[in-house]
Amino acid sequence: MPSPRKYSVGVDLGGTNLRAVAVSDDARVLGKISGDTNLSAGRDAVIKDMVNAIRKLDDACGGGDLAGVGVAVPGFIDMKRGFIVGSNNLPQFDRFPIRDEMNRLLGKPVILENDANAAAMGERWLGAGREVDDLVLLTLGTGIGGGVILNGKIFHGSIGMAGEFGHMTVYPGGNPCGCGNEGCLEKHASATAITAMARLMQLGESVPAREVFRIATEETGDRQWRAIRIFEKMGEALGIAIANLVNVFNAPLYLLSGGPLPAWDLFAPAMLDEVKRRSFTFRNSKTRIERAVLGNEAGLFGAAYLPLAGHTLLPHHLEIEEN
Amino acid sequence: MPSPRKYSVGVDLGGTNLRAVAVSDDARVLGKISGDTNLSAGRDAVIKDMVNAIRKLDDACGGGDLAGVGVAVPGFIDMKRGFIVGSNNLPQFDRFPIRDEMNRLLGKPVILENDANAAAMGERWLGAGREVDDLVLLTLGTGIGGGVILNGKIFHGSIGMAGEFGHMTVYPGGNPCGCGNEGCLEKHASATAITAMARLMQLGESVPAREVFRIATEETGDRQWRAIRIFEKMGEALGIAIANLVNVFNAPLYLLSGGPLPAWDLFAPAMLDEVKRRSFTFRNSKTRIERAVLGNEAGLFGAAYLPLAGHTLLPHHLEIEEN
Repeated sequence: MPSPRKYSVGVDLGGTNLRAVAVSDDARVLGKISGDTNLSAGRDAVIKDMVNAIRKLDDACGGGDLAGVGVAVPGFIDMKRGFIVGSNNLPQFDRFPIRDEMNRLLGKPVILENDANAAAMGERWLGAGREVDDLVLLTLGTGIGGGVILNGKIFHGSIGMAGEFGHMTVYPGGNPCGCGNEGCLEKHASATAITAMARLMQLGESVPAREVFRIATEETGDRQWRAIRIFEKMGEALGIAIANLVNVFNAPLYLLSGGPLPAWDLFAPAMLDEVKRRSFTFRNSKTRIERAVLGNEAGLFGAAYLPLAGHTLLPHHLEIEEN
Repeated sequence: MPSPRKYSVGVDLGGTNLRAVAVSDDARVLGKISGDTNLSAGRDAVIKDMVNAIRKLDDACGGGDLAGVGVAVPGFIDMKRGFIVGSNNLPQFDRFPIRDEMNRLLGKPVILENDANAAAMGERWLGAGREVDDLVLLTLGTGIGGGVILNGKIFHGSIGMAGEFGHMTVYPGGNPCGCGNEGCLEKHASATAITAMARLMQLGESVPAREVFRIATEETGDRQWRAIRIFEKMGEALGIAIANLVNVFNAPLYLLSGGPLPAWDLFAPAMLDEVKRRSFTFRNSKTRIERAVLGNEAGLFGAAYLPLAGHTLLPHHLEIEEN
């Protein structure tokens, strides 16, 4: 294999898994490392693990030109100062200058990005959004996150909090949320919400979303009907939110990703019915609502894309230090 | 007065009023013309009126350099082809190539823009949004329109239908809307919605919004209480919608304009309470929600700004013909 002209390393730092990938600027995967996020060993150990993984990938790509490193993390990012603000999954990193520290250790540009934003960029680069400049991604998990790509760039909003779709109000008098609101999308359509509805529907106290899916597809009678109804309710809530997003963004493509995606056939019909009814923009345009295709690697590849795209990816008022 | 280096003409073509203004690139008003939109005389007569007004202003500015003309119109704009699609107020102009026709008659670049988008740009240039790069405007009238400025540019969406805030769902089982949805913001917070609520609250069959405002501020007892309650309900609906917009855009500034604005003190407290409760982004940032300041001239000045900003205002995939 000839040395690539230019490549980058993407890192996905989750609360459980730490992954890194080296990708050439023509989108060839040059190497990959996966492991656990060793949070119990402390923050510095995790940073060391990341730096070692990046160096290992860089060595294996010897002869190329490492453009930089993109790091996807859960939580809000202070883009200007390059740190995480209030992440539930990585509390040790709260307000620690992770970007500058990695930059110092590696001697390469480092870009820190929210994982849902990175996933949206990954889908746009290598996944379901390759042919569009604008897309909106909703990531369904224990909560619901979001990423927005406008004109091929991640849309951050003024302080990096744009795309908080999980806390859009879909039912003004709906389920209470820890954020202080009620009727938040993620209280009606996340994996957590599926489990909560399963409790209300007397399917069990703590039935995981995938078990509700199994009941809906493999059991019969009243239990099956209840499980199917749960996914319909999930679809309705998603439909209300996505209709609003279509009316607001008028993007050509809306993507869904995350654990509940295998239940697409159970929730998507109700979702699409709501969007059709609630958005004349949807009815009068070629707006597509589809499954993301990169699974849990979208953020990893999106992170790898960031250094290759250079500073054009950043809002005009921000600057990333280059050494 | 010395001749300006460069100036433009903005036109606001409404269903009732036709206005034009000449503005220098340093924001001096050089001349103004107001009249009726003579729709009964036919489309060509209205175009002639516009062209005559523009030439008159241009003549009065003799010696300067007319950069171009911006025309604000109600309805969706097909930005690529330069015409209005489905305007309730200007049916004679539906799908007529108004931009190219005016360009042909004037020999100057002409930019066609939705009136709410133009108003958002006007507020950003000369009004309440002068110090921000991103803002979201909601225009309250018989319906509710919207305009979004991102990075100092009008955000159009993929086919020019972005910012349809009037048809965001705020109450999933709410009032029916002609768009086919129910619970649309404009069915709960527009001037029309105020009149409808006045009917439900037995204040009269067709009480205009300004009369409901008078009852709320000048009468006493039960009638006053009902009128006040109507504005509170309006504020709650606006708050739900704006909280969602804060969660989606994370813009530093949200503006409201239109007829019901004098009732700000009646609806704003309920609105702000909802936004606070429904958006932790709002609670954790310096997001401002304020009155627009240019009144019904925002669109006129925004239209005038467009030719001065040049093609950088347009999405990268669009081109405006210049002759």
